Amino acid sequence: MKIGFIGSGSAAQTLGQSFAKAGHDVKLGARNPEKLIAWLSQLQQDEKVSIGTVREAADYGDIVFNATPGTASLTALSDVGSQALQGKVLVDIALPLDFSNGELTLAVANTDSLGEQIQRAFPDTKVVKTLNTVSSAVMVNPRSVANGQHDLFISGNDADAKRIVTTLLKESFGWESIIDLGDIRSARGTEMLLALSSRIHMGRGHMNFNFKVVG
Amino acid sequence: MKIGFIGSGSAAQTLGQSFAKAGHDVKLGARNPEKLIAWLSQLQQDEKVSIGTVREAADYGDIVFNATPGTASLTALSDVGSQALQGKVLVDIALPLDFSNGELTLAVANTDSLGEQIQRAFPDTKVVKTLNTVSSAVMVNPRSVANGQHDLFISGNDADAKRIVTTLLKESFGWESIIDLGDIRSARGTEMLLALSSRIHMGRGHMNFNFKVVG
Repeated sequence: MKIGFIGSGSAAQTLGQSFAKAGHDVKLGARNPEKLIAWLSQLQQDEKVSIGTVREAADYGDIVFNATPGTASLTALSDVGSQALQGKVLVDIALPLDFSNGELTLAVANTDSLGEQIQRAFPDTKVVKTLNTVSSAVMVNPRSVANGQHDLFISGNDADAKRIVTTLLKESFGWESIIDLGDIRSARGTEMLLALSSRIHMGRGHMNFNFKVVG
Repeated sequence: MKIGFIGSGSAAQTLGQSFAKAGHDVKLGARNPEKLIAWLSQLQQDEKVSIGTVREAADYGDIVFNATPGTASLTALSDVGSQALQGKVLVDIALPLDFSNGELTLAVANTDSLGEQIQRAFPDTKVVKTLNTVSSAVMVNPRSVANGQHDLFISGNDADAKRIVTTLLKESFGWESIIDLGDIRSARGTEMLLALSSRIHMGRGHMNFNFKVVG
């Protein structure tokens, strides 16, 4: 499968490299792609990973990931344009982190979510929210935590799109349990989980954990 | 231990009855205590459970529980008054549910929480937020879910108060793991978990589940 990334930070790099290892073809899209040349040159699977503009990455992907910082996502996606994203599955892994008050909060929460904002801005795109509850290391290696016995969550209005992404994550990274929470409004739940997981992160001193729903 | 309840709804009744079974003395406080007489008369441990006004319940308790609806908590607690709560441990189990927009949201979230609001309104009271992430059936019977292998969370500014409540819940109900999230601001995390757990509730059709942190 061809996978394009809007954004080229550490999450995009980790996911892109891991998708390539799993056999997929990957293009990371950046505002300044040349800054990724050093990273690209040290990849072992460099024939399966390429770089380009955000628009080129969106055009390239059968599936497109939004891996930009959450507070910059709507601007970055509007630079891509609705044409390039039309009809496509857009996997939104971003969190709208807001540090402006000197503490970690969300720029949008409770009555709305970033996933919903993106879906409203791109009504002809199939927005799927997932992966946003774990660190990028856990995203691509769920078995590193409790032998994979924990849950990922997925939200979106399009059932087929959720099925495609669920299969992709299970086959590429070994996720065993991905819980369908319902429509894109349920992205509020996983985005708001940040307030709990950031405290658990502080308490443990690492992000190599996840939640498991039991019962 | 003497345990007083501000509020007399189903959570207060379930907790009160279960604390009495565990050997504690309980007083449920209501605006109209006479409406509880029918409930009280069918209890097997009625000698350990009494009813009264909210002020009487607060005066009575070595530990006081806020079991009012979250959006009514500040008013109910102000009816009790800061005098009766001064120096006491106040266990806040409430969620500020807001259905006014036709969907389930929180009346306060993200940059504040009900737990913090109560702590600010009663600075001489030791507010401890806990139990607010599970149904009342799970609160008092954690072993009914995955044999008790899941986590409760606790938040508060006073370490001694959190220790007292942790011991009370472990000894009374059999909780095995209660994770200290830090100061009362961390109540945001457990209150905001509602957005996720309500979707899991919808998906499963029951509330007999909980979260376990793994890794």
